[in-house]
Amino acid sequence: MIAALAGGVGAARLLAGMVQIADPASISAIVNTGDDIELHGLHVSPDLDTVTYTLAGVVDPTTGWGLAGESWQAMDALDRYGGQTWFRLGDRDLATHMFRTQMLRDGHPLSEVVTAVAQAWGVTVHLLPMSDDPVRTRITLASGEEVAFQDYFVRLRHSVPITKVRFDGAEQAEPGPGVLAALDAADAVVVCPSNPVVSIGPILAIPGVRIALERRKATVVAVSPIVAGAAVKGPADRMLAELGHEPSAVSVAELYSSFAGTLVIDEADAALAPRIEATGLRCVVAPTIMVDREAAAHLARAALDAL
Amino acid sequence: MIAALAGGVGAARLLAGMVQIADPASISAIVNTGDDIELHGLHVSPDLDTVTYTLAGVVDPTTGWGLAGESWQAMDALDRYGGQTWFRLGDRDLATHMFRTQMLRDGHPLSEVVTAVAQAWGVTVHLLPMSDDPVRTRITLASGEEVAFQDYFVRLRHSVPITKVRFDGAEQAEPGPGVLAALDAADAVVVCPSNPVVSIGPILAIPGVRIALERRKATVVAVSPIVAGAAVKGPADRMLAELGHEPSAVSVAELYSSFAGTLVIDEADAALAPRIEATGLRCVVAPTIMVDREAAAHLARAALDAL
Repeated sequence: MIAALAGGVGAARLLAGMVQIADPASISAIVNTGDDIELHGLHVSPDLDTVTYTLAGVVDPTTGWGLAGESWQAMDALDRYGGQTWFRLGDRDLATHMFRTQMLRDGHPLSEVVTAVAQAWGVTVHLLPMSDDPVRTRITLASGEEVAFQDYFVRLRHSVPITKVRFDGAEQAEPGPGVLAALDAADAVVVCPSNPVVSIGPILAIPGVRIALERRKATVVAVSPIVAGAAVKGPADRMLAELGHEPSAVSVAELYSSFAGTLVIDEADAALAPRIEATGLRCVVAPTIMVDREAAAHLARAALDAL
Repeated sequence: MIAALAGGVGAARLLAGMVQIADPASISAIVNTGDDIELHGLHVSPDLDTVTYTLAGVVDPTTGWGLAGESWQAMDALDRYGGQTWFRLGDRDLATHMFRTQMLRDGHPLSEVVTAVAQAWGVTVHLLPMSDDPVRTRITLASGEEVAFQDYFVRLRHSVPITKVRFDGAEQAEPGPGVLAALDAADAVVVCPSNPVVSIGPILAIPGVRIALERRKATVVAVSPIVAGAAVKGPADRMLAELGHEPSAVSVAELYSSFAGTLVIDEADAALAPRIEATGLRCVVAPTIMVDREAAAHLARAALDAL
């Protein structure tokens, strides 16, 4: 049994590697929902969909999110109205949000929606939203304004400096069904190479998650999303720097040292190993850039073998 | 100045005729919203959209609703999930519902949404929702079950007998901005050839509308949607019969006699003229089947000339 803490693209790719070396049904992925957003009345769960579409083999390989071969009729038509089109929703992807929204309206919790969507795509990895309760990542910009995560991430293209991140609703949220059980039952917990602040951070903020990891710290292995001082994808490097951390795998180690036993870092960062081990984590060096499915499988193997 | 009471396809076609013989900006169309429905979290206003798309010249000419040349990627994808696809929403049409829903969420009343959508399509007829407040047509089936209008009309394909129609929320609803003013200021009021029970009925149920018509009854002209005992489109004939009315233009006259001065009936029904005049309405016979834009313009002219 394997449990994984997952954000979006990086996590999805590692999980797509993991299912090549382990029974998908033995894997539980606990996915960030702090990025969720209501757009046009539709409930959008970007990280859950990225993981689902990637495991189903239907993700757009260029962007890493959305569906391959997508059409954009609705977005083009929305432009006519001057509607909000900064968050691009493809026509077939829209169906996922429509189905999710209808199920939520009908009283089903998000976790049931996720299971239904995964089943429709033939995904047998257990996908668990970190919580069925609404938790929303909020970003304070250097200007002092606080905005919703997607406003920062997509609308502003994460191009503005930030001063603070918080997870609205996290303190009152309960872990999603099966989340704590998966963390307790797993032989290994893998913290995927996702943004430590805004992808893994919200999951850790759900009451009970961090302590569940701390209890079994020796068998928690994290993969650094920072390689050679830069995020493989997204603004993790800048966010770390703006929040007062060194933008390197060392900061990842520091942020995770209380609950992870091992950190996998890229070969490019091999020289950082002593500094990482100084934080108390074991350090394993491996190729972490998932250029293809084989590389992803190798990284998954390296992470699990590190334990 | 002309005011029109409008349902869906029949009304839209008559209005598309009217704009050929009168300044579109001098026409106010008061449109039924009792058919509105929330689907997948999206606010859908079928009659308003049918009127808008038709006046914009972009309506699907075969069905009379939706957009011509539409694609159906979202609906096809929704089928994968076993989602609700009985109410077909095309990809570009979805943008209208997304835009509407977002504006409503942002606190704008429906009337402002309607104006924005009409402007985007270059429609200069004043489109006025009958109310900004939610009014929902509810249908009691012969089985005793009460369902939402679209459940009866689309999901059940109006193929089951009914015993009752009511307009939930109508008593508490206020007329939409400009509705009563348009009815008072117009030189002529045209009741379009829409279903008397479920298209015109909800508009009449808005407090103040019926009395505004009664006050100016002599210059209110209605066009019968029933021709030779059958509805030109939809279940109006069966609904009339099931609710205890004769399925003919005579029933339309009876239903409208308190507030309309004139009824335009089809040439096929010329023999009904004496029975219609017995209800107190003047009766005008004209070709009422709008086979093309010219026929629609002729009918609009006949209706206005009848006053």
